[in-house]
Amino acid sequence: GVLGSGDFARSLAVRLVCSGFKVVVGSRNPKRKASLFPAAAEVTFQAEAVKKADVIFVAIFREHYSTLCDLADVLAGKILVDVSNNTEINHHKESNAEYLASLFPACTVVKGFNVVSAWTLQSGARDGNKQVLICSNNQEAKRTVAEIAQVMGFTPVDMGCMSSACEIENIPLRLLPAWKIPIFLALGLFLCFFTYNLIRQVIHPYIREQKNKLYKIPIEVVNTTLPCVSYVMLSLVYLPGVLAACSQLYYGTKYRRFPDWLDQWLQHRKQIGLLSFFCAALHAVYSLCLPMRRSHRYLLIDTAVKQAVEKKMTIWVEEEVWRMEIYISVGIIALGLLSLLAITSLPSIANSLNWREFSFIQ
Amino acid sequence: GVLGSGDFARSLAVRLVCSGFKVVVGSRNPKRKASLFPAAAEVTFQAEAVKKADVIFVAIFREHYSTLCDLADVLAGKILVDVSNNTEINHHKESNAEYLASLFPACTVVKGFNVVSAWTLQSGARDGNKQVLICSNNQEAKRTVAEIAQVMGFTPVDMGCMSSACEIENIPLRLLPAWKIPIFLALGLFLCFFTYNLIRQVIHPYIREQKNKLYKIPIEVVNTTLPCVSYVMLSLVYLPGVLAACSQLYYGTKYRRFPDWLDQWLQHRKQIGLLSFFCAALHAVYSLCLPMRRSHRYLLIDTAVKQAVEKKMTIWVEEEVWRMEIYISVGIIALGLLSLLAITSLPSIANSLNWREFSFIQ
Amino acid sequence: GVLGSGDFARSLAVRLVCSGFKVVVGSRNPKRKASLFPAAAEVTFQAEAVKKADVIFVAIFREHYSTLCDLADVLAGKILVDVSNNTEINHHKESNAEYLASLFPACTVVKGFNVVSAWTLQSGARDGNKQVLICSNNQEAKRTVAEIAQVMGFTPVDMGCMSSACEIENIPLRLLPAWKIPIFLALGLFLCFFTYNLIRQVIHPYIREQKNKLYKIPIEVVNTTLPCVSYVMLSLVYLPGVLAACSQLYYGTKYRRFPDWLDQWLQHRKQIGLLSFFCAALHAVYSLCLPMRRSHRYLLIDTAVKQAVEKKMTIWVEEEVWRMEIYISVGIIALGLLSLLAITSLPSIANSLNWREFSFIQ
Repeated sequence: GVLGSGDFARSLAVRLVCSGFKVVVGSRNPKRKASLFPAAAEVTFQAEAVKKADVIFVAIFREHYSTLCDLADVLAGKILVDVSNNTEINHHKESNAEYLASLFPACTVVKGFNVVSAWTLQSGARDGNKQVLICSNNQEAKRTVAEIAQVMGFTPVDMGCMSSACEIENIPLRLLPAWKIPIFLALGLFLCFFTYNLIRQVIHPYIREQKNKLYKIPIEVVNTTLPCVSYVMLSLVYLPGVLAACSQLYYGTKYRRFPDWLDQWLQHRKQIGLLSFFCAALHAVYSLCLPMRRSHRYLLIDTAVKQAVEKKMTIWVEEEVWRMEIYISVGIIALGLLSLLAITSLPSIANSLNWREFSFIQ
Repeated sequence: GVLGSGDFARSLAVRLVCSGFKVVVGSRNPKRKASLFPAAAEVTFQAEAVKKADVIFVAIFREHYSTLCDLADVLAGKILVDVSNNTEINHHKESNAEYLASLFPACTVVKGFNVVSAWTLQSGARDGNKQVLICSNNQEAKRTVAEIAQVMGFTPVDMGCMSSACEIENIPLRLLPAWKIPIFLALGLFLCFFTYNLIRQVIHPYIREQKNKLYKIPIEVVNTTLPCVSYVMLSLVYLPGVLAACSQLYYGTKYRRFPDWLDQWLQHRKQIGLLSFFCAALHAVYSLCLPMRRSHRYLLIDTAVKQAVEKKMTIWVEEEVWRMEIYISVGIIALGLLSLLAITSLPSIANSLNWREFSFIQ
Repeated sequence: GVLGSGDFARSLAVRLVCSGFKVVVGSRNPKRKASLFPAAAEVTFQAEAVKKADVIFVAIFREHYSTLCDLADVLAGKILVDVSNNTEINHHKESNAEYLASLFPACTVVKGFNVVSAWTLQSGARDGNKQVLICSNNQEAKRTVAEIAQVMGFTPVDMGCMSSACEIENIPLRLLPAWKIPIFLALGLFLCFFTYNLIRQVIHPYIREQKNKLYKIPIEVVNTTLPCVSYVMLSLVYLPGVLAACSQLYYGTKYRRFPDWLDQWLQHRKQIGLLSFFCAALHAVYSLCLPMRRSHRYLLIDTAVKQAVEKKMTIWVEEEVWRMEIYISVGIIALGLLSLLAITSLPSIANSLNWREFSFIQ
């Protein structure tokens, strides 16, 4: 059974019908709404629908839950699936599912399907996340809903008892919260270093010697900026751990909470580290592209021509040669080690390591 | 208990014995077959074996299920594990497990272990997929079989009730079905563009100016072909979404099914996108290799010598320099963004994103 | 309830309090220990604590389990969570959890939380493995503990019945056991080939022709060493499979166990293969860096100058050109194929392939 006639209710009905379930839709105006639903779904009055169904998806807004109170008698003993979402994180004091459970104490309430979009329901979980997080205080009801999700092509994930409902309801509102600060930090650092390098490599030679080096902007200036950003970010990964250790030594206990800013910082280390790796990898690619450029080629030929005209047979400078060999060599090793760290931060790899192995690699 | 004496039955018996279970094998000719099984497993007549065991693995072909009907009385109340596979997808109307359940209504049938090969059973799930998909209408039986799988070193995955049996039986027959069309598409596009570039870069100069440019085939021609393939594939990822939106606008509803060809196309977008990324990455590697080639070096030296002999001091062309700098710069950014898309299509990353984050990144 | 006052007990209490649980700590000296625990946790005598709690975390060493025997009466009917670890793999004949269960037959023992470190408990599972492996013979008790783990922010994983306890207790002691032999093997091979290449490319020219080629050590010698290591490792991946097949042909049966050394070798194939890929990838990066070096540039200019002075207009050698084009081309294809193998060995990708697909790709 599905209560409601909105976008989600319709997608749910379409999907349930396609998965071979017998669907009955409860509406306050079944005649007008019937055309919106697939022909195989029976659209009838709410009380009728509830009577015929054992599992009822409540696809209406939290604000209208109380309008169902008239149906309390027919609903008694049924499984209600709360699929609702909020518009803000922690909008209400108690989760929608807990509120529904408090309105209908005679029903078994299961939270689920809210992490799935109407579009995914419609088109069938082709890519991205196929998981449907489910929680309830009743094991049997949870299992029934999990099996419905399975048959619909989703992967049910048991999230434990009703107290997880609040967490589940907050998930769809999340938009990469852990990435916001690290990304703005990286952008800020990039801008600062880019300006500095621009002045140093392009503007300064132009003012002092009237040399036009503008062609350096898209690659060379960016390429000297990236490792600076990467280094600063990498140091920001390891600094808070040191600060935390100092704070523990200072207060003489491991069991005191860190100040909030340090706690926040510690929590963003993984993202800062991955961005540092991203900058380092970009720096590697930019550096590898240097010899492909026309400017590189022209400068090389010009030097050769100049040497030939002056009959100077060699320009070998041992120190320069060594500097570059060692620089490249160390750079490759550093990138290799950072890659290892990045790979172990993939969820599926991290889950196969115990904490001893994880900290060994880190 | 294991019924059967084929390859799978023997591997199962070996593995069960190694995992510390007491195994009894039921055969119609126990004397002749005993030598095939490990010494620790007791090989006896089918009725004997069934009497001694609580969980019975039915490792015989679907066609011979009916031969077990004589044992119906002894089998009553036991857990039967159907490990069979078919030779074709959806070969029979009902799944093997459901057929077995209909033959022995007094038994509890569990589907499982069919996704594991005899070789994996034998050698012990070293790499690749360690999951054993299990389904049954009886929770208790499912749990018992799941625990046996656990002890054998596999990861049991609960696939819900018996109606999933058909899906589980189809899994081992699958051979990258979603990749076939995209791969042939990529190969076709590659051949077309390769022929065009071969004619343009090698054959045409040869016919018109008698210049031998055959050395360009392995790297340069391939390298101009790859980005063409990548671009066309990328456009094929985004085109069906536009067509789907148009179709919805035309019919004025979101709840009408798309035509089959569009539906198929929408389902292959992820694979087409990954192949597009693969071509782009190969193009990047090929491009980076260009300055390593002998031909590059020889051309460079020849130009320098020509310049020196003509006493022409510089060949700097500002326009050429800028074109290359911008081309490389944009190429790196494009590759970086495609990498991000490719990483979010890893199952373990995709599962940690909600659909809002997933569509934001896409 | 938490029994014990060590590091782990305190972290557990902190975390439980933070997750909203009512915590009572049992200590033999509650007055002295009270200051160590968060204010919200009630610290009292062991018997008192046990009376008030339904789920009791036993955070004391295995050696002291017997000191709890006085509490047997109050403990009866409670759920005991064994969180202990050993200092050596398979230190005792039976696992700690099974030993605890044998001491208190009237209690329900659940093994869990031992894979989590005190630090992770303290700081809240920010990165790395968030899984808490749980096993017990009692489904209901297991579910209760799983829900506590869920609320604490971990991901409970059902590991089946008590016989898995031993395996779970061994996990935190593991330190990449499958990687040790392959890594030493790779290092050994690297050293051998490095010495050989050093003598051939640097020492020999120095002794014979007094040429100083020391600058080649950091990049060129390493770069010729890496593919040798990679090739030998790759052959070591496929060799044991051939040997195993030979052994099966020789003994005429698939069901005989392989000798131990072959079995060990077969089990390390994945790691050897990944190291082979790592060396190949490093070789690719080193090779791509070759044209970036000063030495490359100087040699190029010197050759050009020499040619110009001698008025020799071209140095094109068709054979050299072709050799390099084909070498690079084949190298890229080989690296592409190895990358595919490496990607399918990611756990989340491997789990989405059936064995037919996995062996097809391999």
